[in-house]
Amino acid sequence: MSSQAPHSTLLIPGPIEFDDAVLQSMSHFAESHVGPPFVKIFGDSLRMLRQLFQTTNPASQPLILSGSGTLGWDLVASNLIERGENALILHTGYFADSFAACLETYGVNATQLKAPIGDRPSLAEIEAALKEKDYKVITITHVDTSTGVLSDIKSVAELVRRVSPNTLVVVDGVCSVGCEEIAFDAWDIDVVLTASQKAIGCPPGLSVLMLSGRAMDRFNTRSSPPASYYASMQNWLPIMKNYEAGKPSYFATPATQLVRALHTTLSQVTSRPLAERFTAHATASARVKAAVAELGLQQLALKPENQANAMTAIKLPEGVTPPDVLPLLMKKGVVFAGGLHKQCASTYIRFGHMGVSVTDPARDDIEKAITALKEVFAEVGK
Amino acid sequence: MSSQAPHSTLLIPGPIEFDDAVLQSMSHFAESHVGPPFVKIFGDSLRMLRQLFQTTNPASQPLILSGSGTLGWDLVASNLIERGENALILHTGYFADSFAACLETYGVNATQLKAPIGDRPSLAEIEAALKEKDYKVITITHVDTSTGVLSDIKSVAELVRRVSPNTLVVVDGVCSVGCEEIAFDAWDIDVVLTASQKAIGCPPGLSVLMLSGRAMDRFNTRSSPPASYYASMQNWLPIMKNYEAGKPSYFATPATQLVRALHTTLSQVTSRPLAERFTAHATASARVKAAVAELGLQQLALKPENQANAMTAIKLPEGVTPPDVLPLLMKKGVVFAGGLHKQCASTYIRFGHMGVSVTDPARDDIEKAITALKEVFAEVGK
Repeated sequence: MSSQAPHSTLLIPGPIEFDDAVLQSMSHFAESHVGPPFVKIFGDSLRMLRQLFQTTNPASQPLILSGSGTLGWDLVASNLIERGENALILHTGYFADSFAACLETYGVNATQLKAPIGDRPSLAEIEAALKEKDYKVITITHVDTSTGVLSDIKSVAELVRRVSPNTLVVVDGVCSVGCEEIAFDAWDIDVVLTASQKAIGCPPGLSVLMLSGRAMDRFNTRSSPPASYYASMQNWLPIMKNYEAGKPSYFATPATQLVRALHTTLSQVTSRPLAERFTAHATASARVKAAVAELGLQQLALKPENQANAMTAIKLPEGVTPPDVLPLLMKKGVVFAGGLHKQCASTYIRFGHMGVSVTDPARDDIEKAITALKEVFAEVGK
Repeated sequence: MSSQAPHSTLLIPGPIEFDDAVLQSMSHFAESHVGPPFVKIFGDSLRMLRQLFQTTNPASQPLILSGSGTLGWDLVASNLIERGENALILHTGYFADSFAACLETYGVNATQLKAPIGDRPSLAEIEAALKEKDYKVITITHVDTSTGVLSDIKSVAELVRRVSPNTLVVVDGVCSVGCEEIAFDAWDIDVVLTASQKAIGCPPGLSVLMLSGRAMDRFNTRSSPPASYYASMQNWLPIMKNYEAGKPSYFATPATQLVRALHTTLSQVTSRPLAERFTAHATASARVKAAVAELGLQQLALKPENQANAMTAIKLPEGVTPPDVLPLLMKKGVVFAGGLHKQCASTYIRFGHMGVSVTDPARDDIEKAITALKEVFAEVGK
């Protein structure tokens, strides 16, 4: 049982429900950001990120920054590619448009390869695009939170290594890290950027990244200085290296309480085999998707192989909009999210199934939500 | 009495000790960042910032961003001045160098007007400097956390209006907002940027700003797009305006728990007259500075009018370094900080006296720290 005040169960695709111990860490007493206890917590958190991302290569570099997941885009755009260079953006929803806008802010030429809503660019299309220009980076949204479309980052990374080996493979894993498998070393990925508040299970406010040795080389050989100050790797790398080595270091004050909470959730996550965690998410997702099908409803992500385990974007029946169903679901104690894709936001709702709602056997969040969905669609369908 | 676990009293110049209710808000259960309860909390927090900054001008614009105080520099540098334009930096310590580096990252010509360590540029020097070039912004560190030097922002703002009326007056109030008086409207200031973890009394992780109508006009008439994405006012302004109007809005996920904690502390701060708060800080600061003088020690800030109420930078006796005294102070249950100014970091320690340690009559933090200082310097002096 949770020690939290009674509240509606939060099943939006982030922030998610948090474990009691994680929330308790949020109220940790004041401590110095350069004192030995906090330096150890920060260093251990960086080390646990290596485990979470399945990387043992010492050249890999984890980062924990104070900011939202969006800040990770700035770090990529201002450190790993330069003004006038080309980036290929694989578009599976809202977040590709935003990542492209971020890259363009820093003078990068962003070319979007767009799939129809609910689909993802094919490997053949990606291969053809890669052959057109010298792309310094390719970005892939692992799970686009606006559509629930899952990308096959393993196959894309393989393809990139084959046809354009120097292109950095950048994964936006905001809605995937902690619930969709990511084998950073084995799949030869260069950047995964994410945020604290989704499947990692920590409240929002931390931007989390893992960089490969190849990405570090790219940064170290750039011809111009970083194009951002707050997102500058030049400012942050010494801090991360020092914290992991147990040495106090200062560039900007870290969010001490959030880092404590991150440490708590990463300790929980890494205490069990990751495979078990991914299976739990796949099982819960299959259960949700079966229930959606039973209700005669469609998903925005049309093909089973494109459907995320993190969330389900549920198309509403003709004539029904999110304001027709979200308040009814809320009355039954479950909070879902409305649509987010600019072209069809009013035609679907989003159900996030990540973290403790899925992994904690003491919780019945998913069953409660499915029951609520059934009851509400029975009402709405009348 | 505090309900927090027993811990050494944190008296570094930020993060500071936090009130129990503020820390309890940090462990608020998961909630949607676009749900009505959170939107109200965010909007109320923006409104309370107007009170804290003493601005009733509807053209003033408060912002609350997920990030450290440093992010505020990026917001200024990438939105309120353009590539190739000039900024005048009044240097009173470490943080002026960093703000200048931030401005230069975005192509701004940053000219530093440096005072000797422990002093601040004189009004005559500032006037002469302002007449040399067309400065689009002047930056002033209200309290430089590295030196404890207080700037006279009211007089500087008056001077700027007289000799260079179109120059934006930008105050770095990271170590001053909430403990040193700032009359945003009356003093005709254009930007105050700060962070959550100092005298505002909320854990670290929020960047907080107030912009004037003049600053908003400057942004609205710039000839190039904002030079940062995460710090772009174009991205954030609609969100802030919507939240304050009670409308959900999304650019990047806000740090919901931190915003809850900010709301709690701002509710406490604005429930009493601000004058009382500033007096409490001045009184505590005078008490500390008298004790330092009694010990025969000097401050880094040499003139009484240059000495901050937020903190005291205490010069160590000849031959004594921070590692000689900080562990001894720690043993007595008080955590002070070492020096930070690059040229003399090993010659002084820093004592922060802000927030509940000063304003909560149930706490004896300051007396305890003064006693510890006396005992430790008696030992070290042997």
